[in-house]
Amino acid sequence: SIFGIISNRTLRVLDQKSKQDMRKLLHSIKVGVALVLVSLLYLLDPLYEQVGENAMWAIMTVVVIFEFYAGATLSKGLNRGFGTILGGVLGCSAATFAQEVCRMGKGNAVIIGSSVFVISASATYFRLVPSIKKRYDYGVMIFILTFNLVIVSGLRAEKVLELARDRLSTIGMGFAVCIFISLLVFPTWASDELHDSTAHKFQLLADSIEGCLENYFRLDKEIMKDDQPRSISSRCKSVLHSRSKDETLANFAKWEPWHGKFGLNYPWTKYLQVGELLRELAAIVISLKGCLQSPRQPSPSLRQSIEEPSEAVGLTLAWILRELGESLVKMRRCNREAVIVPKLKSMRLEMSSIVSTFKFGPIENVDGLAIASF
Amino acid sequence: SIFGIISNRTLRVLDQKSKQDMRKLLHSIKVGVALVLVSLLYLLDPLYEQVGENAMWAIMTVVVIFEFYAGATLSKGLNRGFGTILGGVLGCSAATFAQEVCRMGKGNAVIIGSSVFVISASATYFRLVPSIKKRYDYGVMIFILTFNLVIVSGLRAEKVLELARDRLSTIGMGFAVCIFISLLVFPTWASDELHDSTAHKFQLLADSIEGCLENYFRLDKEIMKDDQPRSISSRCKSVLHSRSKDETLANFAKWEPWHGKFGLNYPWTKYLQVGELLRELAAIVISLKGCLQSPRQPSPSLRQSIEEPSEAVGLTLAWILRELGESLVKMRRCNREAVIVPKLKSMRLEMSSIVSTFKFGPIENVDGLAIASF
Repeated sequence: SIFGIISNRTLRVLDQKSKQDMRKLLHSIKVGVALVLVSLLYLLDPLYEQVGENAMWAIMTVVVIFEFYAGATLSKGLNRGFGTILGGVLGCSAATFAQEVCRMGKGNAVIIGSSVFVISASATYFRLVPSIKKRYDYGVMIFILTFNLVIVSGLRAEKVLELARDRLSTIGMGFAVCIFISLLVFPTWASDELHDSTAHKFQLLADSIEGCLENYFRLDKEIMKDDQPRSISSRCKSVLHSRSKDETLANFAKWEPWHGKFGLNYPWTKYLQVGELLRELAAIVISLKGCLQSPRQPSPSLRQSIEEPSEAVGLTLAWILRELGESLVKMRRCNREAVIVPKLKSMRLEMSSIVSTFKFGPIENVDGLAIASF
Repeated sequence: SIFGIISNRTLRVLDQKSKQDMRKLLHSIKVGVALVLVSLLYLLDPLYEQVGENAMWAIMTVVVIFEFYAGATLSKGLNRGFGTILGGVLGCSAATFAQEVCRMGKGNAVIIGSSVFVISASATYFRLVPSIKKRYDYGVMIFILTFNLVIVSGLRAEKVLELARDRLSTIGMGFAVCIFISLLVFPTWASDELHDSTAHKFQLLADSIEGCLENYFRLDKEIMKDDQPRSISSRCKSVLHSRSKDETLANFAKWEPWHGKFGLNYPWTKYLQVGELLRELAAIVISLKGCLQSPRQPSPSLRQSIEEPSEAVGLTLAWILRELGESLVKMRRCNREAVIVPKLKSMRLEMSSIVSTFKFGPIENVDGLAIASF
């Protein structure tokens, strides 16, 4: 049975790995196709006659915008679009203003130089504000870039507006190709990834709790002693350190258009909250594991006396976690009153009987509380 | 005294905040200056006659490369440089190969199209490999971009090599301006940031442990009951969730040229290991805090009986952490044999006296172990 559980887990991991690899391969092929499509602007004579050298901007847009997740591509594309438009408009007005003030002369260059300094420096400062950095970093960067390019070439080129229009239209073509391929052809949704990884965390924690129990009550038999604690802690740590990844995914997921059960009002912040609670639980399980590794252990007979109730409590905990994870996967309301609460109550009773005799209890009690506070 | 400690902490936080703000302001000004400098390529006639429209690439390079930390700027700049050169060389050879094989004809476009697909798709797959993504993501992106631009414009432009040379020289100018301003004028080192934040983590954990103790033995007096646990857990969590930031900083720090005591062999991986241990300790402190919030508490008299030894142990722990942090800040070897070990030994004695009577002990024991394992 243990062999069965382990091979089951291994299979699950392998399966996920090959799935991830397939997605990477798919993404690479999609990028290749998108680039070939925009290269046609150069390669086909009738198209090239239309756009000319500006086809460069379409290629640049595709390379820079096309990201692994559909939401990321959309976010970067929209950021780039708005950044370009805003920068272009501001750059044009600043250039014409400078030309109005002093027609041809050194003063012109001074005005342009100082507005380059002021706008770039303040936009860079703005870019460092955490909330802006999180969602609009790329947009502000493109704004700075476009503003500078437009204002300085405004001094030289006669037809700034035409230049801007042509570039914008090729950028638009690149954007359209990206969005089409990224969102419509086998899309990789960041929202699915966040959903799956949150559900997977429940699994990992349930596995870890079971692993802790197994390890604690089998120490005397010395099986798998070295291996187990490490895999427990690696599982817990993968939960503990998931925060920045979760936040990135949620950020992309917010850009992703309607899909799935909840439509546009998908509760992404709820996912982040659940993730936070799971991370707290993971911290507790890690300290449990620390207790297991401590050299100061109770005698085997004492351990034996609490084996049964502890195992009952631990398995219930793991079961509850699995149940919660399952209901998240299937997106159905977990029947809290009927399923979870009675289990928790019986667990608490069981716990009191242990706590009165042994010090191992209070930690697990906290586990229970963390779950009860869901 | 408590007021003194709190205002001291507040001052420290405020001080750090304003320091960070100053650095952001400085960074913005530096970016502004760098952009004005490269804009001179456009604004001054003699320079413009030399570089022409290619001045655009210098501006683009500065906007895209100039990052907050000097190491990040260097890393992006070198990535961009190597990516451009590699992509350019490969693009040129592919373009000339295509022209050799079939002079003028539809076959030419087919060869170019398929090599665009193959190279882009495989480079994109390569880019998704975690170890490459971590350090060379930007370089590979620039490689794809340059390769595509060069190969498709190789079909149209007669003088690809000249074009490449001119662009490369303006990119080089942009790079030189960035490196000069970023590394030589009030540089912001990622290495310093990593060093300080690692030392700061010791502080935070020492504060948290003290906070836990204070809270536990003052519950009956009901002072600051609501506030304290939250600030403890926020401190611990800021340590717990520091991993991705630490890794980024270490990554940049590795690019930063010689500075500080250790020269080029700065032990950045050691910093990451210390950070990992501190995060484990933070997980334990968080679960300690969980015990404090549990509704099931021992009676006040029992608590009083263990107040003195527990406080002695906790304060010793906090003191050791501070000592370790201090020695990290001052970069001197911590006198382990003379200072830390006797403290730990006396702590263990004290602990045994608590453990025999009370269940609060084993958790702190793990704390001690985590530190002893340093």
